[in-house]
Amino acid sequence: MKVDLNADMGESFGAWTMGNDAALLDIVTSANIACGFHAGDPDVMALTMALAVQKGVGIGAHPGFADLKGFGRRRLPIPAKELVNAMTYQLGAAQGMARAAGGQVRHFKIHGALNNMACENEALARTLFEAALKVDPDIVIVALPGTAMEPVLTDLGCQWAAEIFADRAYNDDLTLVDRSLPGAVLHDPAEAASRMVDMVKTGKILTASGNRIPARIDTICVHGDGPEALAIARSVRNALEAADVTVARL
Amino acid sequence: MKVDLNADMGESFGAWTMGNDAALLDIVTSANIACGFHAGDPDVMALTMALAVQKGVGIGAHPGFADLKGFGRRRLPIPAKELVNAMTYQLGAAQGMARAAGGQVRHFKIHGALNNMACENEALARTLFEAALKVDPDIVIVALPGTAMEPVLTDLGCQWAAEIFADRAYNDDLTLVDRSLPGAVLHDPAEAASRMVDMVKTGKILTASGNRIPARIDTICVHGDGPEALAIARSVRNALEAADVTVARL
Amino acid sequence: MKVDLNADMGESFGAWTMGNDAALLDIVTSANIACGFHAGDPDVMALTMALAVQKGVGIGAHPGFADLKGFGRRRLPIPAKELVNAMTYQLGAAQGMARAAGGQVRHFKIHGALNNMACENEALARTLFEAALKVDPDIVIVALPGTAMEPVLTDLGCQWAAEIFADRAYNDDLTLVDRSLPGAVLHDPAEAASRMVDMVKTGKILTASGNRIPARIDTICVHGDGPEALAIARSVRNALEAADVTVARL
Amino acid sequence: MKVDLNADMGESFGAWTMGNDAALLDIVTSANIACGFHAGDPDVMALTMALAVQKGVGIGAHPGFADLKGFGRRRLPIPAKELVNAMTYQLGAAQGMARAAGGQVRHFKIHGALNNMACENEALARTLFEAALKVDPDIVIVALPGTAMEPVLTDLGCQWAAEIFADRAYNDDLTLVDRSLPGAVLHDPAEAASRMVDMVKTGKILTASGNRIPARIDTICVHGDGPEALAIARSVRNALEAADVTVARL
Repeated sequence: MKVDLNADMGESFGAWTMGNDAALLDIVTSANIACGFHAGDPDVMALTMALAVQKGVGIGAHPGFADLKGFGRRRLPIPAKELVNAMTYQLGAAQGMARAAGGQVRHFKIHGALNNMACENEALARTLFEAALKVDPDIVIVALPGTAMEPVLTDLGCQWAAEIFADRAYNDDLTLVDRSLPGAVLHDPAEAASRMVDMVKTGKILTASGNRIPARIDTICVHGDGPEALAIARSVRNALEAADVTVARL
Repeated sequence: MKVDLNADMGESFGAWTMGNDAALLDIVTSANIACGFHAGDPDVMALTMALAVQKGVGIGAHPGFADLKGFGRRRLPIPAKELVNAMTYQLGAAQGMARAAGGQVRHFKIHGALNNMACENEALARTLFEAALKVDPDIVIVALPGTAMEPVLTDLGCQWAAEIFADRAYNDDLTLVDRSLPGAVLHDPAEAASRMVDMVKTGKILTASGNRIPARIDTICVHGDGPEALAIARSVRNALEAADVTVARL
Repeated sequence: MKVDLNADMGESFGAWTMGNDAALLDIVTSANIACGFHAGDPDVMALTMALAVQKGVGIGAHPGFADLKGFGRRRLPIPAKELVNAMTYQLGAAQGMARAAGGQVRHFKIHGALNNMACENEALARTLFEAALKVDPDIVIVALPGTAMEPVLTDLGCQWAAEIFADRAYNDDLTLVDRSLPGAVLHDPAEAASRMVDMVKTGKILTASGNRIPARIDTICVHGDGPEALAIARSVRNALEAADVTVARL
Repeated sequence: MKVDLNADMGESFGAWTMGNDAALLDIVTSANIACGFHAGDPDVMALTMALAVQKGVGIGAHPGFADLKGFGRRRLPIPAKELVNAMTYQLGAAQGMARAAGGQVRHFKIHGALNNMACENEALARTLFEAALKVDPDIVIVALPGTAMEPVLTDLGCQWAAEIFADRAYNDDLTLVDRSLPGAVLHDPAEAASRMVDMVKTGKILTASGNRIPARIDTICVHGDGPEALAIARSVRNALEAADVTVARL
């Protein structure tokens, strides 16, 4: 039994620092690296990828809307054709940067609002995933099981990894509980860790209502902003290993 | 005897159009496509590359300074390490876009002020060319013969193409006569055409002082902005073919 | 009887030219100058304002979404508070530039998608207009009569100018016929001119269905992109003057 | 005897936070607020200015190069005319934002590399200062005494404030000791505080060589990044007040 641990990183920009990539890279096995459209820049990418290569962490492209000011968190009304071009461009750029760092892009995970939109819309999910697969047919697509993404991926017959979140509560339809609601975000490292061990071992996602919904689980998303998030990430990794779950990259 | 004809294109941005790419793509055999840092955007790149593939024109990455406002024509004080990252990112992005368009990036030509700087500085030229070769060791680098670029390329032992300009006068050191000086830019299509045939046939660059300097010549750069530039491009191509010079992509 | 003629201008950016501002400034009496968020930049603004001052054309701020790539034509989901800041910033910048050019900002006209949104939404219109009035209580707001904007302006009790379009067909609710429909855009200078004289003289907007809807009319919007648009602008001005309508700035 | 305490702030951008503006605004009497070209954005400006108004801190425009990626710290080769437009635009935008916040822009301090360049070049200093004065003849220009700025300001006959730095060592020509040299930056709050009291009381700048050079001193620049910088700012303020120097805004 094994699982991957992934985290978004490379989200600094110019003189502005975000996150604690160096610390996270000692915990996770896959890094979703921003590609310069919603965060990151070529210098941040180079630095982050060099560290990932050095620490044996898998490199992923983490493209988003071209929206630096909104950090890719705004749902922009961009035509599908332009979104295809934005995905292609960012994935290509990430591949070039990874090659220069002595690595390669192994996975593809969409960022922020665009990822949320693709979870709700099969046509959009297909458009975006096909764009990535056209650039690299062997890339592993990281997606949310049980959402509009899953049937598309099944139909495409491509490699993909089902992602759950260490610090978020779930609705019964496997969407995340809205951040504005109480209990939506977990803060206790021990609780997050035991939930993750439970879900990975049983192959079921535990929802806020107490239900257990069977779901594919290949990777766990953790965060690195703030001491609490780092503590959760460390706790999850330690608990998984203590429960004889191998933590290994995709 | 054969030569390539190249032109910069894909320099529109968003709602702003620049150049006449469709017309130029019927004349040239290689297209240097802007990569979104000094001009172009993913949508412009996609459109230009699709046309290039359709017309059998060779695709090149044409990276520049990250300077949209200055169109890559300002000499920016960027550290070498950041320039490496900028070249890598843009070349990778162009490769991804070309793959999605059903083509591939065959050549690499630096844009504007950065290209001028690399013509004057061997260390800079080496830094930039090595960045491109790290992403693709088989890429053809388009460079100015007789400048600081040539010894670097010889030393690197890589594929490269020596470029001359159809509409510019030359100094005896094979640099271009400054645009501000009289006679620096040619306007007569017939004159441009006969000069190009002469240079390609003799393997010598004709300078403003009347000297003929032996130089490697693989490709001729033409422009597409304005009816005059297009007329020069057409005239050069026609004259070369009439003189039994094969016009073929790199 | 008098009317103002206005046009959007200052929409070039860096090396990219858009429109024919110099020609338009000989025809119109008010210039809506882009403020650098969706188009324009400080250098384009300075040049356009200097010409406007020289030709006695009234200067207006023409703010839009911070969306250079989309030219302000995409409906972005920006919170009202941030839109207020965007309006304030752009109007302030335009005031500074106008002062430096020896002029002053007399009017305020919102650009593109944001203007369309404000025509449909009273709360949004109020938010944006109040932002402008907080910076300058005496500014003249250019707005579409008969839309959601009008009751807001009446309620605010501020100075405003009702705008009609020289080259567009109208629905009976005084919104513009969608560009995608046949007849939405007028191409005949003589027809545009006679319609404008008719509407100004009667104080009624002639709709596509043949109805005449009474409306306040203070200014006519003309365009400058392409020879046809310029011809319409000239034709409208000439016809108004021939019909003894004074063409004068707000 | 009185002196102003100023600090650069409003340097966050979108989702990225920089500095600790709220804490600094309890210490300083003047805030130099970034104007969106090298840092800051309209939302950050609005928030920072609202806090400054609430705490009675004087608002200043802090314009820089249009270089978000480089944070205005790169010496860009921009023509004087374009720098004038950049200063005018940013100052105007700041004025609009300040008005909306219920305040007004009282001072003008150039940021980063452009400020360093103006300290070395009288023609450039004159160009930039004249641009600001054209927008507001009554604005107070914050400048480094003893540099190329001072004779220009004297000649212009405008209001200005001479600035010294709480945490930097000085050369005998009143330029700052290069950051790369040992002792260039002070880290001890007590030492910084006693130096500031000494300089303000004597009207002389104490240099690294032990000399005391007479200089106009109107304002002290402190920083807010990191606990050390905040401690220095607090220590300087407390020591000045303990020494009966009134700390009051320009």
